[in-house]
Formats: sequence, structure tokens, C-alpha cells
Amino acid sequence: MTPAHTDAPSFGARFLLSPQGWPYLLVPFIPVAIALEVAGAAAGFVFFSAALGVIPTAALMGRATEEVAARSGPGIGGLLNVTFGNAPELIIALFALEAGLQEVVKASIVGSILGNILLVMGAAMLAGGVVRDRQVQRFDRTAANVQSLMLILAVAALVMPAVFELVDGQGLPRVDQERVNFDSTVEDLSLAVAIVLIATYVAGLVFSLRTHKELFNPHSEDEPEHDDTWGWSIRRSVIALAVAGLAVGVMSEILVGSIEAASESIGLSEFFIGIIVVAIVGNAAEHWVAVLVAVKDKMDLSVNIAIGSSAQVAMFVAPVLVLLSFVIGPGPMPLVFNGFEIAAIFLGVLVAYQVTNEGESTWFEGVQLLALYVILGLTFYFA
Amino acid sequence: MTPAHTDAPSFGARFLLSPQGWPYLLVPFIPVAIALEVAGAAAGFVFFSAALGVIPTAALMGRATEEVAARSGPGIGGLLNVTFGNAPELIIALFALEAGLQEVVKASIVGSILGNILLVMGAAMLAGGVVRDRQVQRFDRTAANVQSLMLILAVAALVMPAVFELVDGQGLPRVDQERVNFDSTVEDLSLAVAIVLIATYVAGLVFSLRTHKELFNPHSEDEPEHDDTWGWSIRRSVIALAVAGLAVGVMSEILVGSIEAASESIGLSEFFIGIIVVAIVGNAAEHWVAVLVAVKDKMDLSVNIAIGSSAQVAMFVAPVLVLLSFVIGPGPMPLVFNGFEIAAIFLGVLVAYQVTNEGESTWFEGVQLLALYVILGLTFYFA
Amino acid sequence: MTPAHTDAPSFGARFLLSPQGWPYLLVPFIPVAIALEVAGAAAGFVFFSAALGVIPTAALMGRATEEVAARSGPGIGGLLNVTFGNAPELIIALFALEAGLQEVVKASIVGSILGNILLVMGAAMLAGGVVRDRQVQRFDRTAANVQSLMLILAVAALVMPAVFELVDGQGLPRVDQERVNFDSTVEDLSLAVAIVLIATYVAGLVFSLRTHKELFNPHSEDEPEHDDTWGWSIRRSVIALAVAGLAVGVMSEILVGSIEAASESIGLSEFFIGIIVVAIVGNAAEHWVAVLVAVKDKMDLSVNIAIGSSAQVAMFVAPVLVLLSFVIGPGPMPLVFNGFEIAAIFLGVLVAYQVTNEGESTWFEGVQLLALYVILGLTFYFA
Repeated sequence: MTPAHTDAPSFGARFLLSPQGWPYLLVPFIPVAIALEVAGAAAGFVFFSAALGVIPTAALMGRATEEVAARSGPGIGGLLNVTFGNAPELIIALFALEAGLQEVVKASIVGSILGNILLVMGAAMLAGGVVRDRQVQRFDRTAANVQSLMLILAVAALVMPAVFELVDGQGLPRVDQERVNFDSTVEDLSLAVAIVLIATYVAGLVFSLRTHKELFNPHSEDEPEHDDTWGWSIRRSVIALAVAGLAVGVMSEILVGSIEAASESIGLSEFFIGIIVVAIVGNAAEHWVAVLVAVKDKMDLSVNIAIGSSAQVAMFVAPVLVLLSFVIGPGPMPLVFNGFEIAAIFLGVLVAYQVTNEGESTWFEGVQLLALYVILGLTFYFA
Repeated sequence: MTPAHTDAPSFGARFLLSPQGWPYLLVPFIPVAIALEVAGAAAGFVFFSAALGVIPTAALMGRATEEVAARSGPGIGGLLNVTFGNAPELIIALFALEAGLQEVVKASIVGSILGNILLVMGAAMLAGGVVRDRQVQRFDRTAANVQSLMLILAVAALVMPAVFELVDGQGLPRVDQERVNFDSTVEDLSLAVAIVLIATYVAGLVFSLRTHKELFNPHSEDEPEHDDTWGWSIRRSVIALAVAGLAVGVMSEILVGSIEAASESIGLSEFFIGIIVVAIVGNAAEHWVAVLVAVKDKMDLSVNIAIGSSAQVAMFVAPVLVLLSFVIGPGPMPLVFNGFEIAAIFLGVLVAYQVTNEGESTWFEGVQLLALYVILGLTFYFA
Repeated sequence: MTPAHTDAPSFGARFLLSPQGWPYLLVPFIPVAIALEVAGAAAGFVFFSAALGVIPTAALMGRATEEVAARSGPGIGGLLNVTFGNAPELIIALFALEAGLQEVVKASIVGSILGNILLVMGAAMLAGGVVRDRQVQRFDRTAANVQSLMLILAVAALVMPAVFELVDGQGLPRVDQERVNFDSTVEDLSLAVAIVLIATYVAGLVFSLRTHKELFNPHSEDEPEHDDTWGWSIRRSVIALAVAGLAVGVMSEILVGSIEAASESIGLSEFFIGIIVVAIVGNAAEHWVAVLVAVKDKMDLSVNIAIGSSAQVAMFVAPVLVLLSFVIGPGPMPLVFNGFEIAAIFLGVLVAYQVTNEGESTWFEGVQLLALYVILGLTFYFA
């Protein structure tokens, strides 16, 4: 099937003000961040310009991935889309890992899961639900349930090393720590858990791309809009992907390099920055899409983006970072979350499960999800 | 729409022995409680006569609220009904707050949520399910799910200050404490959480009284029985409401004033009295209605009363008490629950969610809910 | 109704290699275990031969129970089937209780619940789901929900004594302990909880065998295969039951007697042996049936075996063992689980609820359940 495509847009004012184009309005922050960094400006300014600069690079990366995927046939294309879907997040985390900011990395993993479930799904359900005369929005329970089961299982797995530490009487990491030296038993356990999760993730790819692909793409023929691409050539797409990857890397390095000093100067803890700010910027462009399609009443896709993205972070990004921590940075990073992270992630997945289980949403559910996100954010702020 | 109404009953023997009338059989305990209090009788007697005396005053308050509401049109009427629905509970809690019994207040909040979910819903499902030849009772899943999602979100919010204290290493309140001095950070956090919850509650009123009112009142025309009033005039209703409010206040003051001494003399902890006894008496009349309508196979209404009342305590009564604690009593009361309360409330809402999620009930589900209530009660007793 | 029956099989090669016959291939391990025990062989060998020897004796016990039940009419028969269903497990636990291995007993209770939910249901869903061209397997949600609600309520009850110890500041048992002397309050609480659970269990028998028996046996006429027996006479069945019971007892005594020494020599903790090994061998034959019927696409029966067996352990086996601990062994065994057990059982029942709630399964759900079992097993191994 040749995907339907629209003409590649010229990056003019009209595109920039369109729902898909706004992230590129933030492009000026890329040179600004680099300039401030080189000039040795105050860390707070460097941090925020880099944070805003990440957004368009991540958006371009998503765009380029979809273009490459569209030219690669459904099998490889699906694999590319899924694997590179969280690439910006992974790149930021890699730089943080190398800088030894392991608690920031773990916070950003949890923040990414929470952000998808509560902030994105909440905003989508609110924005989709307040449309005039729209009482209830419905979505396919079966696909949503597969994703939220994946999420709940992954979270159960992810918290076991923390349970281990807790039962062992060694305590969890404190919020004000940057990196904790765990003993080797919990490092081994965390490594083993990571390997099992990645193996399960691979089984999940076989499931979603091969044996049960209809489940996740039931309306592929009815909804050409979502499959639309900009018709880029393979060459152009690959170059764009490389450029975007490089840009994400540069922004990430600046962002991560300024976290410590920015944390001090603006009075937010590194924990808060990791779990709220870093978690949001890496996903902002993608999240916007989830809200947009909810307004168009495509709740299947919207819920799929929110819950699917969470599940992927839990089952793929998190264990990959554990594996990589054995070769990158100061030492292994076992996935021992702190108490706030455990409580928040646990409450988050319970809520996600309940919300998707109904197969329908209203604006008030959106308000409630956002309210819980605000309350968690307040708790993290006071931590 | 003029509400259907029956004639105002004369308070004769026939009415007093009817399902709606029995609370008024307890009216004699009102003067008895006052007399015992004035006479300086043993605290245990004062406490129990005041506890029994609360029940008819709360019943009258509920009655008068419905009468006023019926004369105020659906919009204002709904608002009145919802807001005053938990007034007796709130009044008792206010007196306890003023007396500095903050742990009793928190226990009664949790006890009220648990009592609604486990005791009331359990009794309703058991009583409704044992009716001859009745296999399964069904109710509307959608409305029940909205309520139980509200409940789960509110509980998630309510436990965050306790998580904060726990992670911070400051520990939770002990069961034998009457009042704990928390540091100001957790007071600020609790205040912020309360404000977010109240804002969400207001959004919920817009949802249930305005944008989605059909969801909560689908059969309003088929079921005139529930909408029936006694046809009181506005004047009579308002006077009755004022009298009832005053009576609840007097009984509450006596009740609260005798808790400490009664706790010692009868050998029950203040915690147990708060979470079991106080939680039951404030709601007894309303709870009875939930069981009654279940026997009549109106499970929609029964579940709505039980879960809805729980959700309202969590989303409205609890945060309002936090706000009021800044002006009433010895000092702010952050909502830091103790370990029993957290475990019980968490297990309770999980069970509530599961039970309502099915959209049907049997007598054995009722037995199970009651069994869990008994087990929690035993644990609180031994605490 | 006379149950359909096949001829009693001769125990020849053909039977032994059939799906129902393989457990009897392990019969040689019975004399081997006895011989090794008498000869005073190394504990590791004694333990593993006894563990393998338990499997055929438990299989015979199950067989004989079904034969007796089939000849006793539906009422008594159902009661027999349900009550003796977990008899091998109970016998093993009794010997462990007498030997003072209370932590092993508690671990095997939790391990049995987890094994049923994660290992058995996971294997069943995987084996059933990979059958060519089978996309989704469906099962009856209502019956599954009754069971999983029973499970969640029982688990809520079972963890309350641990909550009590935790809140009381006395701490949970450590993994390396064999037996803990708790104070008498928690012993009383645990006794009271056990009595409430057993009363609820009896109510559940009335529910499933009397008032709602259609719910659990909806297709009794369409599926004669499951009801098939080997047509044994009452006399033969009772003798077989007695022989099997005796054999289970002998194997259990050898098994339990070698646990301590085997634990040391093979380097696995008693905790791991209790929660993984002991939990598996007592149920192996029954579990095999659950996988077998899943392949035949009878998911109703498969899920019923897995969840129902878990629920029964939680609601009947566990409280009975608490009661018996007051007369058998060194002293009362309150059900205070350790941290790993609480975390695992809690995550397990949440997952069980979610999986059964959908009323359908795929091979990937099976993989995920197995993955969680592996991760829990790894955590227990490192504990």
C-alpha cells in the first residue's frame, strides 16, 4: 500500500501556525541555547533555552522517522516507528547517564510514564470532551487493555528492585541524592529484570507487528489522514533523521550540562526538574498530536499514543538504560526508585487502567487526570 | 416539573415503624443525652446516648434538605442536595476539630469512606441479593464508574501528604496520638492538595448537574417514588433545616466532648471510635435508604448513594476540613493518615472499583464486602 | 445424572505417555526418595526425589477425589471436589507446620497463589494462544470476576496482620528467619481474621454449590469430556484416596525433613524453596490440566482452575493452617507475611484481576504473566 501523502509543506508562516507546525516556532531557541552555553550565561537561562530547543528537534526526529518508515514497507516501517518513537527521550537520558545524574534519569523515566498517562491523556480527554454537544468519546477497549496490561506488568517488574532494597532494610534513594551506590546484588537483580523486560518487549513487537497487527491498526484504510506523510525521499528522510538526531544530541548535552547549576539558581530540585521538566520536553511534540486527534474524536489513536508511549518507556527505554549504564557513565544504575516515584507510578497505572478499561471518556475524566498530575507535581515540588 | 409528593406523614406509630420512620424512634435519646451531660453522668453513657441521638437529627436534616431542594428547581435543588448531603458529618467533624481531636477527624473521614463502600454497599448487596429467586442484580456501569474513578483519584490525592511524610522519614501519626504537630511543608502541601480537590469537585458539580446530568438521573420520569417529597412549604422546610442543624450541633458537641473520657472508660481507642462509631452515626439514616432501595432492586440508586457518598467525603468534606483547620481549633490539620487508614482506604477503593466495574452484584459479593469490613474493624480494634 | 465415563486405563506405556498419564512416570521417585532418606543420603538428593515423588501421589489423590465425587451426587460431590482439591498442599503444609518451618509454610501459601495466577494462567494463555490461526481466546467474565473478587478480598484480609505489625513498628519477618515469635495481639488478630475468612468461605460454598451453581457449571451438558471419570467403584476410589493420602504424607514428611539441610547444601534459601519449589510440586498435576484444557480452547475451565485454586488457597487453606497452628507445631502462626510476599501477592492479584476482567486472552498476555513470574522468582532468588 502506497501511503497517502500530502505535499511537503514549505516552512512558511502558514505552516508554522498550523497545529503540526508550532514546534518549529521554537527553532530559534536552538542557536540561542548554543550561544548562551558558549557565552557561559547563567545556568537558568541556558537550561530553559535548551529545554525549549529540544522540542523542535524531537518533532523533526519524529517526522523523519515516519518518513523513513513510510518508505520501508509496513514490517520494517512499524519496527522503525516503534523503536525510534522514544529516541529523543533516550538520547537525553544517555547524556544524563554519562554525566552521572542517575537519579535524574530515573526521575525522567517515571515522569515520562506519568506525563503520558495523566497530563497527555488528561489534556486529550478534556480537549476532546469539551467540544460542543459531545457527551462521551468512545475508544476500543481491547487494544487499550493490551497496552495498559503491558504497563501494569512492566511497572510491577520495575518496582521489584526497590522492594528488594526496602525489604533488605537498605532504604530507598533520597530525593536530594544525585547518584546512589547500591550493592552488587541489587545491580544483578536489576540487570536480570531488564533482560526479561527487553525479551518481553521483543515478544510484544512480534505480537503487535506480526501476529495481531489488526488489533492495533483496525481502521488503517478508513483513516488515511493519520498515515499521511510529506512524501520525502528516502535520502531526504535519512538525512533529516541524522540532522535531527545530532540536534537532539547537542541540545541534550547543553540541557543536561546545565541541570545542576540551574537547579541551584532557580530553586527547583534536580528531582523535580527530572520528573516534570525533562519528562515533558522530550515528548512535547508527540503529546501535542495526542491532544489534537482527541479533538478530532479519534480517541483510539489518542489513547494508543498516551498509554502505548508509557508502556514503551517502561518496557523498553527503562531497561535499555539499565543495560547501557553498565558501559556508560560512572557505574551501573539499578532501577531502585525513590518513595515518591513508586507511589506516583503505582497510583498512575491504577488510574490508567481504570480509565482505559471503560472504553469511554468525558471532559471531567480529563479534569480529574490533570488534577492528579497537578497534585503529584505539587508533592514533587515540596519534596 | 412539579415533583410528585405524598402527604406529609403524621409522626404516629405507623410512620415510626415504617422503613423511613425508624430513625425518629431514637428521638428520646436527644433529651437523654442532654440530661446525662448536664448531670455529669459517666462518659460512656453520655457518649452512646449522644451517638444514638445524632441519628434522628441527621435524618431530619436530610429530609429538610430534600424538601428545600424540591422547591428550588432542579439546578439549585441538586446543588443543595449534594452540598448538604454530608452536612451532619461535617458538623460533627467541626466540633472535633475545635476540640483538637484531629486524629479522630481523620479517622472519621476514612471510616466514612470505608463504611459507605464496605458496610453500606455490602449490606445493600446482601439484602438485595437474598430476595427469593433473585440471581443477580444489575446496575448501570457507566455512572458507577464515574463515581469510583472520582473516588480512586481523590484517594490518590489524599494519600500524597502521607507519602510525603513517609519518604521524608518523619513517620506517620501513631494510633494512640490525639494530634500531631507536622512541619509547615506538609501543611502547605496539604492545603494545596485540598484546594485542587475542591476545584475538581466544583468541576464535578458542573459535570453532574449541568453537562452530563442525564447520566446520573436517567430514569427520573420512570421513578417518581424516589423524587417524592412530603410537600412541605419552603418556610417549613427551612425552619426544619435550621432546627435539625442546631440539633445536630448540640448532639455533636456532647458526642465529641465525651469521646476522650468514654474512650478510657469503655476501653475502645479514640481511633476505633472515630473510624467505626462516629463514621456510622453521622450517616446511619442515609445508609438505611441505600439498603432499602437495594431490596426494591433499584441497584443504580443504591450504588450511587454508597459510592457517591464516599467520593463526596473524599473530594469535598476532607479538603473543606483541611481548609477550616487553618481557622478552627488548635492548628492546621494536614491530611497525613496513619498506616491503618492508608492500607484500609487503599484496599477499600480497589474493592469498590472492582465491585462496581462488573455492573452486577450477588448476595455473596455483599457477604464478602461485609467480611472485609469486619476484618478491618477487628484490625482497628486490636490497634 | 450419571457421569459419562471412559474405561479405567491400564497403566501401560500408552497411558503413561498421554497428557493425563505423565505424572505417574514419576512414581519411581517415591521409592527412591524413601531409600535415599533411609540411607541417609545427601539432603539435596533426598529433597529433589521427594519433590518429584509428591507429584504422582498428588495426581492420584486428585483422581481418586474426582471418582468419589462422581459417585456421591452433585451436592456432596462438589463439596468433596472443592474441599479435597488442595489436600496435597495442605498435607505438605501440615508437616512443615509441625516441623516449625512457619516461614516456609507462609511462603508456600503465597507461592501457591502466585503460581496459579502467573505460572499456570500464563502457561495456559501462551499454550492456548499459539495454536495456529487462533487470535483471541474468550472466557466468561462473570464467573472469572466472582473468583478474582474473592481473591482480592481474601488477599486484603490476609495482609491486615502484616499491616498491623508494620504500623505497630514491630517490623515484618526477615527472609532468613525460620520462625518468628509474634506477640499475642497479632496472634489474636490473625485468629479472628482466619475465622471470618472460613465463615466467608462456607458462604461461598453455599453460593457456588447451591444458590448460583449454574454460574460455575454453565456447560455441564455440552462438555461431557471434563466430567468423565474412570468409572471406579466407590470402594476402589476410597481405597485409592486413602493410599494417595498416605503416600502424600510420606513424601511430604521426607520433603519437609530435608528442606533445611537441602537449603544449605544447594545454596537456595528456605524462602525460595517454599515460595517456588514447594508451591509448584503440590499442584503440578492439577496445573497441567489447566494448560491442557487451554490448548483445547476451554478457557473458562482453565481460568476457573487457575483463579479458583488461588482463591481457595487464600480463603480456605491459609486460614485453616492458622487455626491448626494453635494445636500443631511449636506455636501459633499468625499470617504476618514478609515484604516480598506482600508486594508479590498484591501485584499478582491486581494482574489477575485485570487479565480476567477482559474476558479474553492472547499468547502475549501469557508471555507477560510468565515474565512477571520469572521476575518475581529472580527477586526471591536474590533475596
